Amino acid sequence: MDTASSLIQPLLDGRPRALARAITWMENGHPQARELMALAWPHLGRAMVVGLTGSPGAGKSTLTDQLARILRAEGKRVGILAVDPTSPFSGGAILGDRIRMGRIAADPGIFIRSMATRGALGGLARATQDAIDLLDAAGWDVVIVETVGVGQDEVDVVSCVQTCCVVMVPGMGDEIQAIKAGIMEVADIFVINKADRDGVEKVESEIEGMKSLSHAKDWDPPILRTVAGAGEGLPELLAKIREHGTWLRAHGGFQEKAHARARLRFGSLLAEEAARRARARAGAEMEEELVQAIAEKTLDPYAAVARMLD
Amino acid sequence: MDTASSLIQPLLDGRPRALARAITWMENGHPQARELMALAWPHLGRAMVVGLTGSPGAGKSTLTDQLARILRAEGKRVGILAVDPTSPFSGGAILGDRIRMGRIAADPGIFIRSMATRGALGGLARATQDAIDLLDAAGWDVVIVETVGVGQDEVDVVSCVQTCCVVMVPGMGDEIQAIKAGIMEVADIFVINKADRDGVEKVESEIEGMKSLSHAKDWDPPILRTVAGAGEGLPELLAKIREHGTWLRAHGGFQEKAHARARLRFGSLLAEEAARRARARAGAEMEEELVQAIAEKTLDPYAAVARMLD
Repeated sequence: MDTASSLIQPLLDGRPRALARAITWMENGHPQARELMALAWPHLGRAMVVGLTGSPGAGKSTLTDQLARILRAEGKRVGILAVDPTSPFSGGAILGDRIRMGRIAADPGIFIRSMATRGALGGLARATQDAIDLLDAAGWDVVIVETVGVGQDEVDVVSCVQTCCVVMVPGMGDEIQAIKAGIMEVADIFVINKADRDGVEKVESEIEGMKSLSHAKDWDPPILRTVAGAGEGLPELLAKIREHGTWLRAHGGFQEKAHARARLRFGSLLAEEAARRARARAGAEMEEELVQAIAEKTLDPYAAVARMLD
Repeated sequence: MDTASSLIQPLLDGRPRALARAITWMENGHPQARELMALAWPHLGRAMVVGLTGSPGAGKSTLTDQLARILRAEGKRVGILAVDPTSPFSGGAILGDRIRMGRIAADPGIFIRSMATRGALGGLARATQDAIDLLDAAGWDVVIVETVGVGQDEVDVVSCVQTCCVVMVPGMGDEIQAIKAGIMEVADIFVINKADRDGVEKVESEIEGMKSLSHAKDWDPPILRTVAGAGEGLPELLAKIREHGTWLRAHGGFQEKAHARARLRFGSLLAEEAARRARARAGAEMEEELVQAIAEKTLDPYAAVARMLD
């Protein structure tokens, strides 16, 4: 049986199996998870954390894989977290992972993991933050977080990465672009992928239009074109991500992001832990009775929760 | 100044302004929100609650509007909740609402509301559940909940409605269909909208394929075709929704759904309220110090939360 103190050293040594186990601990609320995070915490803060957000079909996986390839050629180790809110159920994502596994996971310098709530304790955002931190502590140079960018959990995640890239493609229809407007505020770089398709100028002018609607920022998010499948535009994208990192460092943006991230982490963990303690105090039987009373409409949910906490 | 006891009667009388205010109370954690829900609670359980879930561009709004039109012709009052996880930021959704407002909101028998976290207390799932309950208590016959169906919040919402319709369209690409596989488990009816387009058979066989992968259910989700813009297939869809309701009633599904919903509501409210109480006890200053300590890496998030709660 592993304990936090037996797992920390292989984790800090960058052993993939220790890392995988540690992430599972965080997802499942393992009794030693807290202790492990406390041991890992002092080692944080070296990884470059990049978010890639875009609709299904935008080509995020291919972009990620190509970025990973360039970074691997530089000798960097790359962690990839695919945040997949649909995985609690059966379905596509797991298959998608298997295909990828064959392609890049043979490389020991790449760690790939699909993040999903799976009905586990805590939310997707908290578990993903934990995974980012563990990869960072374990000495991985770059962490790429892929998200669909629609759920609030995901917006929470990408609002706290170092550099958030929003990926769009030409010809996906106005309504899809419209929903993308929602993550306007957190985009540091816009990527028009599959830029060899018709309609690039249209997407570009739409992005410009959305930018003009949002608050002016000191960092004006650039719009880059890529054809990920052919590797086009990838070195430029990586250069721009690094430029943004340098800019953040020079303008206090690192502390700002760290603070936003700390606030988010604190808030989600507080809710989780406060609820856990309340459950431990009241017992499962009481909770079951209260849920039953709500279902039978003899008690409203607010009153039931008050009864549990009082 | 309204109080719960002054708002409850106009709410139960079905006055739209009282309803709108009550929903805002729930979203914002108004001091009287709890009392209002307690007063409304005994009046619940009459509305037919339908979920419509699908990608942007699948035509959910048009489907909803057409269903609403048929129901209005029957003299039913219809509440529409558009769950929009992107609204916290600037963007498309608000514009979309304005267009719809002009089209159907002049009808006093239709109540339309866009649900979004807006950084408010509690999650989107909880606020949407509250809104469903208030519409129900206020005597609205049908509540239609539209979601994009990607975020966990939304999956939580649609897993608890009476009848969940998953909307797909031909020709949106395999990757989009793949992510849709995730809500397979909660679908009661599949709708292929824009069924006058090429590729209907392909989508249909994909859905059949996904169905065969999931657990066998007593209710075998049918696949219907609609062309919402032309009103085609809408009466059939409504008939199928009602058939599913009848089926649920005959097979104990109503109690099962009520129990699942009660569990979900209890869980999210417990986390919210337990955190609120912890904050009230510890004070904002302590929280700020702890967040700062996390950001500066002198304290890990788990330890910070433990300090707040101890």
